[in-house]
Amino acid sequence: MNKAAIYHRPESEFAYLYTKDLVHIRLKGAVNDIESAELFYGDPYNWISNYTAWGSQSIQLEKLVSTIESDYFEAEVTVPTKRMDYLFVITDKNGEKVVYNDLGIFPYEEDFVTKKYGAFRLPYFHETDRFKAPAWVKDTVWYQIFPERFANGDPSLNRKDVKPWDPTESPERQDFYGGDLQGVIDHLDHLTDLGINGIYFTPVFKAFSNHKYDTEDYLEIDPDFGDKVVFKKLIDAAHERGIKVMLDAVFNHIGDMSDEWQDVLKNQEKSKYADWFHVNQWPATYTKTDDFEVAENPTYDTFAFTPHMPKLNTANKEVQEYLLKIAEYWIKEFDIDAWRLDVADEVDHAFWKKFRTTCDSAKNDFYILGEIWHSSQPWLAGDEFSAVMNYAYTESIKDGLIDRKISLEQMVSNINNQLMLYRKQTNQVMFNVLDSHDTARILTVAKNNKNLMKLVQAFTYLQPGVPCIYYGDEYALTGGMDPDCRKCMPWEPENQDENMYQFFKELVAFRRKYANVLSDSPLNWKIIDDKNGIVKFERGELKAIFNIGERAAYFVADDVIFSNLVDGKNVLQYGFVIYK
Amino acid sequence: MNKAAIYHRPESEFAYLYTKDLVHIRLKGAVNDIESAELFYGDPYNWISNYTAWGSQSIQLEKLVSTIESDYFEAEVTVPTKRMDYLFVITDKNGEKVVYNDLGIFPYEEDFVTKKYGAFRLPYFHETDRFKAPAWVKDTVWYQIFPERFANGDPSLNRKDVKPWDPTESPERQDFYGGDLQGVIDHLDHLTDLGINGIYFTPVFKAFSNHKYDTEDYLEIDPDFGDKVVFKKLIDAAHERGIKVMLDAVFNHIGDMSDEWQDVLKNQEKSKYADWFHVNQWPATYTKTDDFEVAENPTYDTFAFTPHMPKLNTANKEVQEYLLKIAEYWIKEFDIDAWRLDVADEVDHAFWKKFRTTCDSAKNDFYILGEIWHSSQPWLAGDEFSAVMNYAYTESIKDGLIDRKISLEQMVSNINNQLMLYRKQTNQVMFNVLDSHDTARILTVAKNNKNLMKLVQAFTYLQPGVPCIYYGDEYALTGGMDPDCRKCMPWEPENQDENMYQFFKELVAFRRKYANVLSDSPLNWKIIDDKNGIVKFERGELKAIFNIGERAAYFVADDVIFSNLVDGKNVLQYGFVIYK
Repeated sequence: MNKAAIYHRPESEFAYLYTKDLVHIRLKGAVNDIESAELFYGDPYNWISNYTAWGSQSIQLEKLVSTIESDYFEAEVTVPTKRMDYLFVITDKNGEKVVYNDLGIFPYEEDFVTKKYGAFRLPYFHETDRFKAPAWVKDTVWYQIFPERFANGDPSLNRKDVKPWDPTESPERQDFYGGDLQGVIDHLDHLTDLGINGIYFTPVFKAFSNHKYDTEDYLEIDPDFGDKVVFKKLIDAAHERGIKVMLDAVFNHIGDMSDEWQDVLKNQEKSKYADWFHVNQWPATYTKTDDFEVAENPTYDTFAFTPHMPKLNTANKEVQEYLLKIAEYWIKEFDIDAWRLDVADEVDHAFWKKFRTTCDSAKNDFYILGEIWHSSQPWLAGDEFSAVMNYAYTESIKDGLIDRKISLEQMVSNINNQLMLYRKQTNQVMFNVLDSHDTARILTVAKNNKNLMKLVQAFTYLQPGVPCIYYGDEYALTGGMDPDCRKCMPWEPENQDENMYQFFKELVAFRRKYANVLSDSPLNWKIIDDKNGIVKFERGELKAIFNIGERAAYFVADDVIFSNLVDGKNVLQYGFVIYK
Repeated sequence: MNKAAIYHRPESEFAYLYTKDLVHIRLKGAVNDIESAELFYGDPYNWISNYTAWGSQSIQLEKLVSTIESDYFEAEVTVPTKRMDYLFVITDKNGEKVVYNDLGIFPYEEDFVTKKYGAFRLPYFHETDRFKAPAWVKDTVWYQIFPERFANGDPSLNRKDVKPWDPTESPERQDFYGGDLQGVIDHLDHLTDLGINGIYFTPVFKAFSNHKYDTEDYLEIDPDFGDKVVFKKLIDAAHERGIKVMLDAVFNHIGDMSDEWQDVLKNQEKSKYADWFHVNQWPATYTKTDDFEVAENPTYDTFAFTPHMPKLNTANKEVQEYLLKIAEYWIKEFDIDAWRLDVADEVDHAFWKKFRTTCDSAKNDFYILGEIWHSSQPWLAGDEFSAVMNYAYTESIKDGLIDRKISLEQMVSNINNQLMLYRKQTNQVMFNVLDSHDTARILTVAKNNKNLMKLVQAFTYLQPGVPCIYYGDEYALTGGMDPDCRKCMPWEPENQDENMYQFFKELVAFRRKYANVLSDSPLNWKIIDDKNGIVKFERGELKAIFNIGERAAYFVADDVIFSNLVDGKNVLQYGFVIYK
């Protein structure tokens, strides 16, 4: 047995409450090494039943997914007394049998089980500590709007330096095109027709730049975008259409034009805001470089190296109160449904725990989405975020299906590895972005291969988690890395790809119709064929084949649900098919 | 390479701030598989240095400890910008080379390093999230007092049913012998002479039983023990002698004689305390059994199965406020230095996080010790406890050195496994109990082999973490499982083992003299010889040999520091020697 590969971690994604009473227990072992794994579990104080009907019992763990290196097993159990000791009896393919418990791995002896020597423990099923996510998210298809580039609905707000609206033009870093909130209101029909039911807005608060990530005033709508009246109108109109609204909170740093930072620059260590930031040496200053966004030798901590985004000291109680009031304000006064948290990983956990409590108190079923690009267990234990922007997941999809940088086998391995980082209820609400204002657009990544873009979208919509359309993708908008990915939305038919639009409409309808299946059902990989470029998997009743190779794939379907196949009912050339 | 065995977990005991700026990064692999492991690390936004002097660099990880299955490696690094991306390049003994990053394990390609594909991340060095423990604990030797059995200093407090003080008598479960707080004050000279500098008191608050774990009133000293005046006198006297004081908080449950539970029994679901507990079905009731401590079919959650300890609902805000005020009261009014938390694992994490904040606000350098018998990472991330009662660690010492239930190799493996569950600063303050009011006494476990008891004590005092003497052990008191382990303290010379007392006095002095070495230095295992029953290890400048076999062990010492050897300077028969 490959004992070094065996792993379990109590009170983590390996052992958690899925519902109030149901516990999921996972176990990792080397791939193709473990023949059977049995979970012995029972009340810690009554392992061998003397007093009640409930003693210990056992259940076989079932193989859940595999990576290239590892097999993952899982069992779902409960104990009526809401507390549980447990241990594993593992047999490998050669018949070697061991006990794996909280102290280590031991040659099997019956005593280890009957006397539960060194058992793992889930001490009590605390509903308050359980990871909970709002149910509505599972049925949501998001749409991301970068307000400055979505639509200009109120030209009276136009800045003097506004450029003409032109979806074919690559924007420069400091350009303004006049997008605003009225523009969004004007196009809500478009969103409803598309079928989405959640909007994620990049920042709308007063700020210097076009992207507004350098907040000047968290309590004001940026005058380029409108005011609170129009914002309220927008939220209410969205809600009437059953569309949830998520705002972007930039709490890691503030804009250098904010009153707070300006006061620091003016009064330096005597500023009442001196401790609101991380100034490592007074005076707070830096040396300019040719690049506006890069400082040399800043004496204060910044987002990346930009001197215009001084990092906030969220361990300071005043800063905490200030930010938490903002979080509460937009929920209570404007009834927003979710916060997306910018650069969430660089803010301390203690602050996010308070943030979570604040949001939960302000509104039921509130969704908190962290911008984190890497593995995120520390933020997803139940007391901080509901989900993260799942770049780490979709990166592997892009690397496998588009760039072919990794094999399909590796892609599936990476995906399974990501799924095993989180609880099932977390995976169900992860925010699966293929592109955003921070990446190249997916069509550009796919080198303008629209069929491939569709295939990758369909693949992503079939994954656990919820999808998000980056504004303009539905019309096949292109764009390289920031700022090129922030082009103006094409509203003139000649700039719109109608075929792509219809595809997205169908895809969204499909995702919403099968929301339950796509949230709850296991992801069963059936074929991973690198030679022919074919992947097949199932989600409950749904079967799906993806063909990025040169040979046809054949299948037998009772019912083709959704496809870009052109060569007849049972033959899939390059493309995908979802069927029953 | 055994890739399935490779493991790292960001923001955990595998990646943490040791000090404000120093990061410890650990990596696990299969035993004897990895030839070298290199950590590449640098600023996330400046991996390849364009703008500052700080780009990425690399360092070899060093092997820290091994278990039977795994090798653990560690590196200590820092990054001036207080944020860090990192990945591993691992080469096995056959020359196979891989990159291990946040997405998985990949065949080595230079690009993976230079472009830091899928790097792990420590997003920012947050001092507020760092695991911190009070420095004084590292130099503390604790002494555990069970007040009812330590000393009777005020016979006027004696209950009518008090039995005569008799250290040779095995107590029954409901017996009272008259121990009290004045008795402790009277014997502070004994504690000072012994050399200890911390007292852990099992509960002293008003309760029905002799052990007082069924609290009636958390704000009153039990009248059997004295009152607040004498308690204050005791604390002040202890502090004057440089002795810290730790009280026992029983917050998982309350006594059934408390006003709160009595009100529930009287008014049932109409009681204002109805939601203070976990009543699963009204009325709150149970069926008696022959055993006073066991209920059949209780309709409410209890500690274990005892109907006399109804479990508190710590998710209820009123209960939280009630308990947190108590926590604060004894710190602010009586200046206690630490709380020991009974059945700590069965209380929710959300509550303990508030508890931690309350204690930290009330007093600097406060120590919080959880009663947890199993692995405890979820409570030891920095925002709940400082340490746990380290039974999981000492259990292996007893199993290996006393019962010989496991081999010495397995014992060392288990110990190393335990050490790798926690951050270094956590291991330094773990509470290493060999026995307590909840276990058989160590001399009884050692079947009255005093030499073996001494050996095991010395072994434990040499481990990372801090030791604790269970009252009476210093006089070789015996006792089986509870209640036998709660005999009266022997104060008459004829019941005291003077040789054992001298041993403890020397052992405590030794531990305190070498506190820094024993906290900070690595634990280097040199010999693990199951055939001859010999273990040798080093802690910094200190070397130690333990011989539980039948053949002599030979050594060359410049300076024998502490030993029970009898056969000359360089020959160790059954026993131990600590030397330089």
